[in-house]
Amino acid sequence: MSEKKKIYKPKPISGFPEWLPEYRAVELQWLDKIRAVFESYGYCSIETPAVEELEVIAAKGEDVDKEIYVLERLQAEEGSKKDARLALHFDQTVPLARYVAQHFADLTFPFKRYQMQKVWRGERPQMGRMREFLQCDIDVINVDNLPIHFDAEVASICYEALASLDIGRVQLRVSNRKILLGLLEALNIEDTIKVTSFIDKLEKIGREEVERVLKEDVGLEEDQISQILELVTCKDLSSINAKNDTMKEGIEELSFVMKQLETLPADAAISDLTIVRGLDYYTGTVYETQLLDVPEFTGSVCSGGRYDDLAGSYINQHLPGVGISIGFSRLFDVLRQNGKIEAGPSSPAKVLVVLPAEDQREAMNEVAQTLRKNGINTETAHGGKLKKQIAYAEKKGIPYVWFPADGQVKDMASGEQTDADPQNWKP
Amino acid sequence: MSEKKKIYKPKPISGFPEWLPEYRAVELQWLDKIRAVFESYGYCSIETPAVEELEVIAAKGEDVDKEIYVLERLQAEEGSKKDARLALHFDQTVPLARYVAQHFADLTFPFKRYQMQKVWRGERPQMGRMREFLQCDIDVINVDNLPIHFDAEVASICYEALASLDIGRVQLRVSNRKILLGLLEALNIEDTIKVTSFIDKLEKIGREEVERVLKEDVGLEEDQISQILELVTCKDLSSINAKNDTMKEGIEELSFVMKQLETLPADAAISDLTIVRGLDYYTGTVYETQLLDVPEFTGSVCSGGRYDDLAGSYINQHLPGVGISIGFSRLFDVLRQNGKIEAGPSSPAKVLVVLPAEDQREAMNEVAQTLRKNGINTETAHGGKLKKQIAYAEKKGIPYVWFPADGQVKDMASGEQTDADPQNWKP
Repeated sequence: MSEKKKIYKPKPISGFPEWLPEYRAVELQWLDKIRAVFESYGYCSIETPAVEELEVIAAKGEDVDKEIYVLERLQAEEGSKKDARLALHFDQTVPLARYVAQHFADLTFPFKRYQMQKVWRGERPQMGRMREFLQCDIDVINVDNLPIHFDAEVASICYEALASLDIGRVQLRVSNRKILLGLLEALNIEDTIKVTSFIDKLEKIGREEVERVLKEDVGLEEDQISQILELVTCKDLSSINAKNDTMKEGIEELSFVMKQLETLPADAAISDLTIVRGLDYYTGTVYETQLLDVPEFTGSVCSGGRYDDLAGSYINQHLPGVGISIGFSRLFDVLRQNGKIEAGPSSPAKVLVVLPAEDQREAMNEVAQTLRKNGINTETAHGGKLKKQIAYAEKKGIPYVWFPADGQVKDMASGEQTDADPQNWKP
Repeated sequence: MSEKKKIYKPKPISGFPEWLPEYRAVELQWLDKIRAVFESYGYCSIETPAVEELEVIAAKGEDVDKEIYVLERLQAEEGSKKDARLALHFDQTVPLARYVAQHFADLTFPFKRYQMQKVWRGERPQMGRMREFLQCDIDVINVDNLPIHFDAEVASICYEALASLDIGRVQLRVSNRKILLGLLEALNIEDTIKVTSFIDKLEKIGREEVERVLKEDVGLEEDQISQILELVTCKDLSSINAKNDTMKEGIEELSFVMKQLETLPADAAISDLTIVRGLDYYTGTVYETQLLDVPEFTGSVCSGGRYDDLAGSYINQHLPGVGISIGFSRLFDVLRQNGKIEAGPSSPAKVLVVLPAEDQREAMNEVAQTLRKNGINTETAHGGKLKKQIAYAEKKGIPYVWFPADGQVKDMASGEQTDADPQNWKP
């Protein structure tokens, strides 16, 4: 051990966060809560590999292609070139589509699944942007036709999941793209992607700037612009005058969804026609979610919507779906950085059984095993001075210390020490 | 939808397993059980990124280097070359060492952690060999000196974790490398790596073949060979004659560990000096684990040992440790392929509340919410014919169907239908 060693001091890798045990404990607790809500609605878990064939994953959207991580073997074996190129998935929607297509015959529809996995994007890291992050997704997929009430169900589930984390007021904003797209159709406006992408920025860049770009960049008439802006800022769905069937359908769908969401607490869900989601992928209901009590969290913590055809590139089946995704890592990281998350204990144990003297080892182990059998997480001390053992419990946030020979337990918070029987003791 | 689409039919990627929901349900249950056992002993969770800097991960062992997956951006941005090269981790020991070195000042020692993550190895896939697999690891690390009783603790934990899965009899085989290495020292045999690696193969290739290679490949004398083989096949620790301090220490340590493990069921842990683990990395206690009732599972399901210095390449601290790793994916896959795992339900729901008519939607939703609030996972039907709704419950393995208007619940297994109040009903 005395020889001079060459030390490579490791640095954090930008964009790949990791937590100390006391924050990981909170993260695990949150993930357990989210999973419990997903399962309470009967959504099943699936887990797909970290990789997909590059052919499956690439060219889903050109913007994302440049963020894709491809795997290369450090030392390629001869002949290994024959293998398909593999890439880390950058979301959970492409893997879901591939999964449903591949296992179509073995799945029961409507297929309701949740998925909580890491995804990877090779973008430049910045505050809240990560290269590796965890998403918590739920989606429902059906064959040919998916009833609209699922659009309300996934919204409720996401609301409940976020509310279970105790991070202040959560507000879902819900819209239906058919309403705006119907109006654009009625106004003979063809460049719908450009228009919706500017409406998407309304809150960020302001009404005046949107008016300017719709006029100058898209070339719309003033009357068209004012009709569009009147529609998207309208607060009362029933006051909207449907100009065609698309608009009418959108209004009906959104009204149904909002009606279903009335069981949520007041202000938990509002309709907001400025929500369009940039993506052309969505065809009806769309969602975003704000944390009303966390102004530091900009943008949407949980978004999604309804799509017409999940897996058309992989299977000759019409598979409409609706889904929402919680951007878990960003949520956790922003709240943590803003001091909104209290660190948990760095041990899951409720009790440390101490070892005041070596001849109490057997007694210590017996007490610990009894407590564990009763469902109480328990550490045993590793020896050394008693004072140090108790300091260890304090440092790790273990709330009780047990003295095996005396049959006594000490509450670390109050300092109170009482007689206790491991057979029937509860923390 | 009527236009001819170009379909790319996705294929399974060799070495990257994924399960249907009914097996994923079992996998999740198993992982929950293993985690509960790890936490019951106060081990904390950590999760490290999927990647490490290539400089950290490579050259830990040359054999593994050719299996390392390096990340490349599909379309590299200008300037991105400055970033360190990243590689997927191939185990959880290197990431642990890096984690402990990096966060040394913020951790409480002895640092007891568990880690349940995927790891990746770009090797040729074959039966039971995967390129992506999940490991469940526990390790204890301390500064300068780690008490020997932890060697017994991690063994107990792994035994309990595996036993909780209800996969038949589990047998830990425990040894201590100091005993054999001490003998080799006493016999003036220097090529310890070669000798231990042949002893490691004893069970596989047989005594005669080991005698041959020790003679022909290592050049040992017959007397040396017989002393070695007598030692490693010895069943009674107390009968071993220690020829030097190393052997004596090894015998004492192993005796202590076996004494501690006496609280486990009979035959759950045996000492077996043929266990040496190929790796030079281990310096004392070593473990392997057999599934006695699953002959199809060859090799060790859970292995590990004591090491002298976890993170010497990253930090100027002496950090001895002891750990065990459960090769979860291989375990799960081999048992599944041999029909030893019964598929679970493909929905986590215990109840399906049906919708016999549209005007019962509110009642359906209310029943479902009440059940969920009482901790009962509940799906609501998505409409359609009642018969089809009930068939859906059957197909997904949902054990109860609830009729909201009648206030009745049907046990799908017995066919019995009874009155029930969602407020206080229990499955």
